[in-house]
Amino acid sequence: MTIAPEEDRLHAQISFALEIDKLKRVLRRNHLMDGSRRENDAEHSWYVGMLAMVLAEHAPEGTDIQRVVAMLLVHDLVEIDAGDTFIYDTEAVAAQADNERAAADRIFSLLPDPQGAELRALWDEFEAMRTPEARFAKALDRLAPILANHHNDGGTWGLFKVRAAQVREKVEIIEEGSPSLGAFARELVELSVSRGHLAE
Amino acid sequence: MTIAPEEDRLHAQISFALEIDKLKRVLRRNHLMDGSRRENDAEHSWYVGMLAMVLAEHAPEGTDIQRVVAMLLVHDLVEIDAGDTFIYDTEAVAAQADNERAAADRIFSLLPDPQGAELRALWDEFEAMRTPEARFAKALDRLAPILANHHNDGGTWGLFKVRAAQVREKVEIIEEGSPSLGAFARELVELSVSRGHLAE
Repeated sequence: MTIAPEEDRLHAQISFALEIDKLKRVLRRNHLMDGSRRENDAEHSWYVGMLAMVLAEHAPEGTDIQRVVAMLLVHDLVEIDAGDTFIYDTEAVAAQADNERAAADRIFSLLPDPQGAELRALWDEFEAMRTPEARFAKALDRLAPILANHHNDGGTWGLFKVRAAQVREKVEIIEEGSPSLGAFARELVELSVSRGHLAE
Repeated sequence: MTIAPEEDRLHAQISFALEIDKLKRVLRRNHLMDGSRRENDAEHSWYVGMLAMVLAEHAPEGTDIQRVVAMLLVHDLVEIDAGDTFIYDTEAVAAQADNERAAADRIFSLLPDPQGAELRALWDEFEAMRTPEARFAKALDRLAPILANHHNDGGTWGLFKVRAAQVREKVEIIEEGSPSLGAFARELVELSVSRGHLAE
C-alpha cells in the first residue's frame, strides 16, 4: 500500500497534537486569580492569547495582533520538556535557554515541513523580542502574573519572597512592548507596595 | 479629576480580563489525553486554537484561520455562567441555549464598545455554524474529545455510556467543517468500536 503524502502530513500533525496535550500538565508558579490553585501552561497560554485580543489597542500602531495571538499560543510549548522556570530565579533562567532550544528542536520537528519550521520561527521570534509583535506578546506574558498577584493580595510574590525591585524590572519589559500597559502595570505594582502586599 | 476615556476603556478591558480567568475553573466531561484528570474550558480553548493552526490545511480553501483561532479562544466563555453541558445530554443541550445567550449578554458587555460587540459576534458566528470559519471551528471542537477518547481506551465514552451511533453524529459535524478531518475522525471511531472501546 502506498500512503499518500497528505496522509503522512495528517499523521504527523496528529502526533504533534497528542504531544502538546502535555502542556496542560506543566504547572507554573503563579496561581489563578482566585488563588485556588497553581495555573498550568495551557490555560495560561489561552489567557494571554485572549489578553492580546482584548488589549490590542495598547500595542504600537501596525502591530499584527493575529501574529501576537499565534505566538502566545505556542510560546510555552518548549516547557513540555524543559519545565517552567520561575522568572525571578535568575540562575535557573540562564541554564534554561539550552534546554528550551533542545525542546523546540524536538517538539516542532514532529510537524511536517514547512509547518514545523514556521511555528518554530514564531517561538524564536518571541524569545528574541526584536519585533513589535514579540515585544507586545512578552509584555502580556509579564502582565498576566502581575494582574493575578495584585488581585490576590500579593499572591505568589509573598509566597516566594519576591521584592518590589524585581517586579519593577518586569514592568520595564512591559513598557518596551506597550507604554500604556507599562504605566498601568507600574500603578498596580506601586499600589501593591503601598498596601503591604509586595515588600520593598 | 477627569478620567480620560482611554483610561475608562482600559479599566473595562481589565474587568473583562479578571472575569474570564474563571474559565479555568469550568470543568468539562472529558479528560486529558493521559486520562489523569478532567479538562477545563480554558486549556481546552487553547488546545482547539492550536489545532486550528496545526490543521489549517484541512479547512476549505479561503477559510480565514486567524478568525477560526479567535473564535475558538472565545467559544466557551459563556460557560463561566452557564456551565459545561455534556454534548450527549440532548435535553440539557436544548435548555442550555437560553442560559448561554444570557451569559454572552453579561460577559461580553463588560468590554467597551465596539469591542464587546465584536467578540460577541465571533461567538454568535460560531454558534450559528453558517460560515466556513464557524464550521471548521466546530469541527475541531468536536474532533478534540474524539482524539482524546480514542487515545485513552474509550475514556469518557465508557464512563458516560456513550454509544457509537451518538459519536457518529458528531463525526457528521466534523465532516461539514472539513471532509478530510471528518474521514479521519470516522476512522478513529470505527477503530475504537473494533477494539471494544466504544459500544455499538
